[in-house]
Amino acid sequence: MPETISSERLAALFRPRRIVMIGASERLPHARMVFQNLLEWGYGDRVLLVNRRGGEVYGRPAATSVVELGEEIDVAFLSVPVAAVPDALEEAAAAGIRSACLLAGGYAEEGQAGAERQRELVEVAERLGMTLLGPNCIGYLNAVDVVPLLAAPVERLPRRPGRLGVVAQSGGNAVSIMSLAASQNFGVTHVVTTGNEAMIAMADVMEFLVDDEETQAIALYVETLRKPEAFLRAAARANAAGKPVVIFKAGRSELGARTAAAHTGALVGDDSVIDAVLRQYGVIRVDSFEDVVVTAGLGAVTGPWKRHGVGLVTVSGGMTSPVADRAALKGLELPAFAPETVSALAEALPAFGTPQNPLDTTGAGLEPEVYARCCTIVAHDPNVGIVVSGGHLPPSGADFAGKPWVLLGVTMGPVPETLRPVLDEHETCWLGGIRAGIDALASISDWSVRRLRPEPPAPEPVPVPPQEERTGRWSEHATRELLAAAGVPVVPARLVCTAGEAAEVAAAFGGRVALKIVSADIQHKSDVGGVRLGVSGEDEVLTAYEAVAAAGGAAAVEGVLVAPMREPALELLVGVVHDEEWGQILAVAIGGVLVEVLQDSALRRLPVSETDVREMLAQLRGAPLLRGVRGSTAADVDALVQVILRVAALAQALAPELESLELNPLRVDGSTIEALDALVTWRTR
Amino acid sequence: MPETISSERLAALFRPRRIVMIGASERLPHARMVFQNLLEWGYGDRVLLVNRRGGEVYGRPAATSVVELGEEIDVAFLSVPVAAVPDALEEAAAAGIRSACLLAGGYAEEGQAGAERQRELVEVAERLGMTLLGPNCIGYLNAVDVVPLLAAPVERLPRRPGRLGVVAQSGGNAVSIMSLAASQNFGVTHVVTTGNEAMIAMADVMEFLVDDEETQAIALYVETLRKPEAFLRAAARANAAGKPVVIFKAGRSELGARTAAAHTGALVGDDSVIDAVLRQYGVIRVDSFEDVVVTAGLGAVTGPWKRHGVGLVTVSGGMTSPVADRAALKGLELPAFAPETVSALAEALPAFGTPQNPLDTTGAGLEPEVYARCCTIVAHDPNVGIVVSGGHLPPSGADFAGKPWVLLGVTMGPVPETLRPVLDEHETCWLGGIRAGIDALASISDWSVRRLRPEPPAPEPVPVPPQEERTGRWSEHATRELLAAAGVPVVPARLVCTAGEAAEVAAAFGGRVALKIVSADIQHKSDVGGVRLGVSGEDEVLTAYEAVAAAGGAAAVEGVLVAPMREPALELLVGVVHDEEWGQILAVAIGGVLVEVLQDSALRRLPVSETDVREMLAQLRGAPLLRGVRGSTAADVDALVQVILRVAALAQALAPELESLELNPLRVDGSTIEALDALVTWRTR
Repeated sequence: MPETISSERLAALFRPRRIVMIGASERLPHARMVFQNLLEWGYGDRVLLVNRRGGEVYGRPAATSVVELGEEIDVAFLSVPVAAVPDALEEAAAAGIRSACLLAGGYAEEGQAGAERQRELVEVAERLGMTLLGPNCIGYLNAVDVVPLLAAPVERLPRRPGRLGVVAQSGGNAVSIMSLAASQNFGVTHVVTTGNEAMIAMADVMEFLVDDEETQAIALYVETLRKPEAFLRAAARANAAGKPVVIFKAGRSELGARTAAAHTGALVGDDSVIDAVLRQYGVIRVDSFEDVVVTAGLGAVTGPWKRHGVGLVTVSGGMTSPVADRAALKGLELPAFAPETVSALAEALPAFGTPQNPLDTTGAGLEPEVYARCCTIVAHDPNVGIVVSGGHLPPSGADFAGKPWVLLGVTMGPVPETLRPVLDEHETCWLGGIRAGIDALASISDWSVRRLRPEPPAPEPVPVPPQEERTGRWSEHATRELLAAAGVPVVPARLVCTAGEAAEVAAAFGGRVALKIVSADIQHKSDVGGVRLGVSGEDEVLTAYEAVAAAGGAAAVEGVLVAPMREPALELLVGVVHDEEWGQILAVAIGGVLVEVLQDSALRRLPVSETDVREMLAQLRGAPLLRGVRGSTAADVDALVQVILRVAALAQALAPELESLELNPLRVDGSTIEALDALVTWRTR
Repeated sequence: MPETISSERLAALFRPRRIVMIGASERLPHARMVFQNLLEWGYGDRVLLVNRRGGEVYGRPAATSVVELGEEIDVAFLSVPVAAVPDALEEAAAAGIRSACLLAGGYAEEGQAGAERQRELVEVAERLGMTLLGPNCIGYLNAVDVVPLLAAPVERLPRRPGRLGVVAQSGGNAVSIMSLAASQNFGVTHVVTTGNEAMIAMADVMEFLVDDEETQAIALYVETLRKPEAFLRAAARANAAGKPVVIFKAGRSELGARTAAAHTGALVGDDSVIDAVLRQYGVIRVDSFEDVVVTAGLGAVTGPWKRHGVGLVTVSGGMTSPVADRAALKGLELPAFAPETVSALAEALPAFGTPQNPLDTTGAGLEPEVYARCCTIVAHDPNVGIVVSGGHLPPSGADFAGKPWVLLGVTMGPVPETLRPVLDEHETCWLGGIRAGIDALASISDWSVRRLRPEPPAPEPVPVPPQEERTGRWSEHATRELLAAAGVPVVPARLVCTAGEAAEVAAAFGGRVALKIVSADIQHKSDVGGVRLGVSGEDEVLTAYEAVAAAGGAAAVEGVLVAPMREPALELLVGVVHDEEWGQILAVAIGGVLVEVLQDSALRRLPVSETDVREMLAQLRGAPLLRGVRGSTAADVDALVQVILRVAALAQALAPELESLELNPLRVDGSTIEALDALVTWRTR
């Protein structure tokens, strides 16, 4: 797959001067639908038809070849049989066409033979310098420049352009998103269906949409995230431009992954990694079509919020409880009104009204002047950053103090027709339903804070072993030395090769010690009897040494590690693994019994900043353990963060050979932080 | 509040022969709206108008008093000023009217004075034998008998009756539910707004709806659950009748509780208790208006499922991934197809189709015969209990083998007009959107299993102290004896009153012991130095005794408890508390650090069955600890369940005086189960 397709190349595809439909015929319902859409939207003059047999198609003469047309054409829409596609591309390229759109299936979504066919297709396109959309898609719709090159029923196309850029791997779902958006009065700029993404992936279209002036927010439906690096770059650019990226990614469940694979012919990545990475890079992940539309729609209207705090005003008293519930659930701030707001509202409302946020204006609010006055008062509250007017009543005549305002419905459904002109006039929107609306407000509020993620500083240099040694699996001893050299604290320990040495070392440590066999060949030391814990006194040490050393059997043994025993304390797991899609992933988890019972971990893609690591620790369900419970010592979080950053720095320095580096457990007792055990493995065996 | 209002009394209110509007005038928008609705729906002949000043109202003559009318009237609709309500009720009663509907606010929702006014109102009504709906409501709509006594815009009334009974405390939200239902092609039987529920509470209307033959499911919007006992009885009857009760209860959040209080003038109960009790009694709790409508609507169509397992068929390949994801998230079973289904589908579909569940019929499914054939094959699968057809395509001509089938849309929105006749003809429904639809399927599937909850057996009799002793707070020693007498295992311990006795007892136990001061006056024994753990040897015991005994200070001390120390093991908390709303609530939690960090507990209302207790243990997040982790002993769950049942039996025997009974910790080490500490408190101080 080519790394990226530039916005310039996509502009040529999405803003064509002329389109030729190659293989157009009455028999093909999709091609016919596309032609009718182009006709209906006034693009008919710029569509040309080619059919090997010539004659008349769709009521107009078709040329027998592209060259014959002699026009400057930008896009070839291919409706030829799969076997004829390469020739059609050749012909189009010969006529100077640089972009093609291929709806047909029969490629990577159909097993190995299909995948091979797709590879050949890309080879041909690349050789010809052609930009190819699809295959297995339904085309695109450019609502700004009025190019509906989309195989969807004409009645489902949007009536007018808006601000939402939509990209979907599934054509049907693209149409669903577009239709729902239209019913919510959200227009689109571009709708692009990417299908199998043989050449143009979602990330490429995102870059195009970031560059597109009309697009204010990007809505995505994804089954398989391809070109992950490019995706994150595009997301960062969108965030910098103040355009939220909202993604509905299917394939969360194992079953979901199975069916997505059947549908798009590609493997679906590990969902928890995707979840963490999307959040880390400021991409808003939602889990329904409704949320994609409402969240992106809201973000397109408000952009990033300068001030937070929602002030909700409604005549529908029944809305206040569900709104407050949902806001609390989603962490959306509904701040208490300032005293001056409360007294002003008390004056504006009947005695029985309660001047609190969310505000029920009672029946009195049915008077437009009273309602407008309430909205004005709330908008001027210093704690309020955005005003939400709940219900069907447009807040006519209110002064919103330059702050954004939107309307919120009780339930999801089409925008009431009477409200559409109001929304358009004020360039605002209707949020369809308390659930979707409050969720969208919470997401955009959160995104406004998170979107500008500072580039993590370059990690401090750490000493690393020569590349040629980075193979296989290293012993605990070798891993300990690697960590120690990098400044990661490890429990003091000594490698010994005789029982006498072991006894000497144990005596020097004093108290109880642990003896562990050291061998790169032995994965589970305990299982083979290679570990003795809580050994004390010379006799016990001598006996334990012999037992542990004997456990090595035929394995290549480096020696026996003698380390002082530690009292029970909080144990963490800190690890970095190489993910084929996303690169190095840092994992932090509460260790011990909790990690097994709760699967309680936080993930981030490297590099990370100090802030990222603090967030990771805070998001653990077991986070209270770090603050100390039942009189146990609170962890020195500052020191812990530095240790984790050091592990991350080491992992980065060991890329790309590193497969995994794991400290388990990392013992945390106040500011005494030490790895008690560690393991490194490399991608080359 | 009267205990219950019978279905017969409600039938008189909801199926009136004639209605009189008292105080009807042009100035009152709500009364006007109600009159117009009655007129519009053909009830005009049976509405009579009364106005003190007589004259013409709404274009027809008004009588100056009810008695003057001389007709047999069932319902008085009151639009008089608050102060005139009692007189109007008197007048109506004098004319033989037995039911009244009061929309006005100014009662319990407006603070103490309002609450007092409401109490007086109920007194008057009860004295007159009147059944009163409201106040602070918008009336009701009986779609079956065509009585729209509802203050809602006529265009929002449903076009025809259906199967859903709707009850809401908020008028606005009742209209939202009704409108959304209509847009989803779900008709209603009755919509009742109960407002402040001065007399008629939701529970009463539920009983009426259970008795109502047309109603097949009940949808509720609640801010404050009143008459909880009656509510649970009604829910049980609805479940027995196969009518699901679906509730959207606001007031989950603290903020939600605050605003709900402002809105309805009543305290909102503790949400986690409500959540547990609703689930226990087979009431489906949802958290959005969309879910109330779609879930109740589906339940009204299918009733309880005889067979589970959803087979999903669609031409929209894009649906399969989101559907599979959502089903996995919600625990909805999408079983793998049987081998004969797979082979039959492989024959019916093109080679590239994948015959799996959910089934993408590919473009081939656009042929109605192919689609019908696929639906037929899936319906005959032995693992499939219900067929869901995804998308806009009605599965015409399919043979569903007598199994229920429904349609599922991709996004929430009005039912496509073309589908309404199809739905009506086949008496089925459209589920609006993958999120709401799959959630509804999962809820009804789960409800079908849970709705028939066997009555827990009467607990075995346990010895209990005389009622007059059930006061204040009991000491650990007294509580231990109470538990032991009831057959709840407690750690062996002896109460001693001298140091010498303590030493003797300790020697008899052997090993290390714990000494604890015993006094009903000392709540936190450790805090005052009244506990010594891990004491061993005569000297230590003697010293510890003196120290512990001295910690009593001026408190009334019964003595010192000497008990053997136990090794660390799994610790649970088992307690029963008296809840003002719901009665006795049993709580089981994982103890120790986990309970503090995770707040991991399961709640049930007493009485409970063995199955309930097993479910409680299974639902704990820390449940894996019961199975043993890291080599720790697995708990003897059978024995543990018996201990918890014994605690429950004891609590029931101690009702109604019991305030709380708590075993914390209950130590579980394999089949060795003992309370290490316990406390009982009583409602009378």
